[in-house]
Amino acid sequence: MPRLGTDRLPLDLARGRVLREDVIADRPLPPFDRVTLDGYALRAADAAGASAEFTISGFQPAGHPPLSLPASPGHCIEVATGAVLPDGADCVVPYEKVERADNRVILRCAEAPRPGDAVHARGSDRQAGSLLLRSGARLRGRELAVAASCGRTDLLVSSRPRIGLLVTGDELADPGAPVMPWQQRRSNDVALRSVLEAAGAEVRCRHVGDDATKMGAMLAELLEVSDFVVTTGGVSKGRLDLLPDLLSRAGATSRFHGVAQRPGKPLWFGLSGGRPVFGLPGNPVSSFVCLHRYVLPALGCAAGAAARPVDFVPLVEPVRSDRVLTLYVPAVLVRGGSGGRMARLVPTNTSGDLTALVDTDGFVEIPPDGGSLPAGFLAPFRPWA
Amino acid sequence: MPRLGTDRLPLDLARGRVLREDVIADRPLPPFDRVTLDGYALRAADAAGASAEFTISGFQPAGHPPLSLPASPGHCIEVATGAVLPDGADCVVPYEKVERADNRVILRCAEAPRPGDAVHARGSDRQAGSLLLRSGARLRGRELAVAASCGRTDLLVSSRPRIGLLVTGDELADPGAPVMPWQQRRSNDVALRSVLEAAGAEVRCRHVGDDATKMGAMLAELLEVSDFVVTTGGVSKGRLDLLPDLLSRAGATSRFHGVAQRPGKPLWFGLSGGRPVFGLPGNPVSSFVCLHRYVLPALGCAAGAAARPVDFVPLVEPVRSDRVLTLYVPAVLVRGGSGGRMARLVPTNTSGDLTALVDTDGFVEIPPDGGSLPAGFLAPFRPWA
Repeated sequence: MPRLGTDRLPLDLARGRVLREDVIADRPLPPFDRVTLDGYALRAADAAGASAEFTISGFQPAGHPPLSLPASPGHCIEVATGAVLPDGADCVVPYEKVERADNRVILRCAEAPRPGDAVHARGSDRQAGSLLLRSGARLRGRELAVAASCGRTDLLVSSRPRIGLLVTGDELADPGAPVMPWQQRRSNDVALRSVLEAAGAEVRCRHVGDDATKMGAMLAELLEVSDFVVTTGGVSKGRLDLLPDLLSRAGATSRFHGVAQRPGKPLWFGLSGGRPVFGLPGNPVSSFVCLHRYVLPALGCAAGAAARPVDFVPLVEPVRSDRVLTLYVPAVLVRGGSGGRMARLVPTNTSGDLTALVDTDGFVEIPPDGGSLPAGFLAPFRPWA
Repeated sequence: MPRLGTDRLPLDLARGRVLREDVIADRPLPPFDRVTLDGYALRAADAAGASAEFTISGFQPAGHPPLSLPASPGHCIEVATGAVLPDGADCVVPYEKVERADNRVILRCAEAPRPGDAVHARGSDRQAGSLLLRSGARLRGRELAVAASCGRTDLLVSSRPRIGLLVTGDELADPGAPVMPWQQRRSNDVALRSVLEAAGAEVRCRHVGDDATKMGAMLAELLEVSDFVVTTGGVSKGRLDLLPDLLSRAGATSRFHGVAQRPGKPLWFGLSGGRPVFGLPGNPVSSFVCLHRYVLPALGCAAGAAARPVDFVPLVEPVRSDRVLTLYVPAVLVRGGSGGRMARLVPTNTSGDLTALVDTDGFVEIPPDGGSLPAGFLAPFRPWA
């Protein structure tokens, strides 16, 4: 896969992007001895017994410079959660564990306070200079907040991939237009565009009938302005499967054509001037599965995203594997008898049956030549985006 | 929860929204007897043996009106995937199973073809009038494509919630500004805003120090223009925990204040003129956990989203439960010894330790008073958004 370019973006525009630099702590975290409970800061050594008495010598709110605890024993400072621990204090006793009268408090704890109680010590999360976010992280709420917490206002991230999407076929009518009894309405463009846009891509979408001249012109246009090209239909062995030939004439080199899988056997993949071209089959289930199995991981790779391990889920029922083909079967995740998650297969009625996918969560991979796989077999599971 | 209003949106703008109407099939699916393989359509009865010979009487491309198979036996029509089955034919024999010479083909199948072979029968997925998408569905690629496939160009969906986010605390410095040794940089706004926006909300964000007058004014402003208000900080029992009082003065009625949980014990919840107000604690781990545990489900509910069952994951190691508090513990999903998914707990170093969340996948719920829970205990798991 080629590597996408980078943008430097303010945090609020970086959501969903892949980080392309490391983020380092500029200060220790937390940056000071931080009070974690509302109460009274004091020296643990001053609290000889569990009911020692202390004079309140001040109030330390959060966000203000530290007060100093008087050097003589028997003093405390009232503190707010989030405040810096006053100089000279080493622990905090919460409100619940004292009795207060005017400017004095009497400890009412079962155990004597110890140094460090209710204090989030400076640097105890991370030292200054430590690695907080790795290049390759997908930026969501946590990551962006960590970047903000060490003073970052912008981040270097992967650029959005520009994807040309070409949906082919004479049989596809516009959703809003009258439809003939032998036509279907176009929906692959809707399915693929939606998933690709949700993955952060800018999608330029075209529909063309089975006309070699027009198809070739559209391919050339999309190859010109895209980082990736994705097509649907026209890659099988029929008379009107024009794409492999047109792609090669447009300068794309085939890397493979055909994968031992169902659905999606006719999958075509090649490169045109370094730009990946995915020729997905036209059946809606095939193109949707291939999008998730091949195109989305390729986009992650091009963005420099750290690879995620594949999830394995036990099957509810036995299933017969194919002798030669890897099977991708839509599945619903259910709670099994033991309480854990299992996958119930929902085979589609041919790979044209898009409606069957609506109530599924993703698809499992059934490896070839495994004979009859038992219930409980751990199959790789990929969720729908 | 109040119910959000609705918008009628074109499909490409409806992504991520919650559907607020049912979507019904306007035609059978598929709408015609659809050819599923490139090959030759014929009458199975004409293929008495496995090597019958047929004359090709035409070519039926996809998207064109059906040709008619000649009434006399021994004829076939070449067909493309996605085409309507020619009138009079009842099956398709793929290219791989014939030998062709000029305008004649000889079948080379191990078994004689049967009616229905390689035909995706009209209405075999769904009948006209059947329910394809239920009100409450979250609209992603599959759902939008199904809507397109039955001719829908727009859909009735939930409006985006307008959320007022008020981050409080004197200790919070702007990420880009100089920071004093006793200050932390503001990050809760970044974390919460990012997650809320990813969930489809329009977020209006304000920061205010521990100043009752200013805080009251900002609360009033946000309550005026928001469907939900979310605050962080200022809901504990300290002297500067101003929010419960200010919220009540702003006309919000408390429904509860304090939940037997860690983190997030001081959580405040109330209603102001029917608008939900969530007073989240100020510690970053507390507010992030409470956002996922309470605010996001509330938003789903207000949007009319169908409830999702909670996921249960076995724990890698034993854990001690609290006598009284439900514990929410960040966790990484790992592959256990048996190959299935397990949760490895990653306790944070106080609820101020945001950096610890970066490499976790979500959090598990440890119920109170369970004593020591064994390895393998199935705990509710919620992924980070």
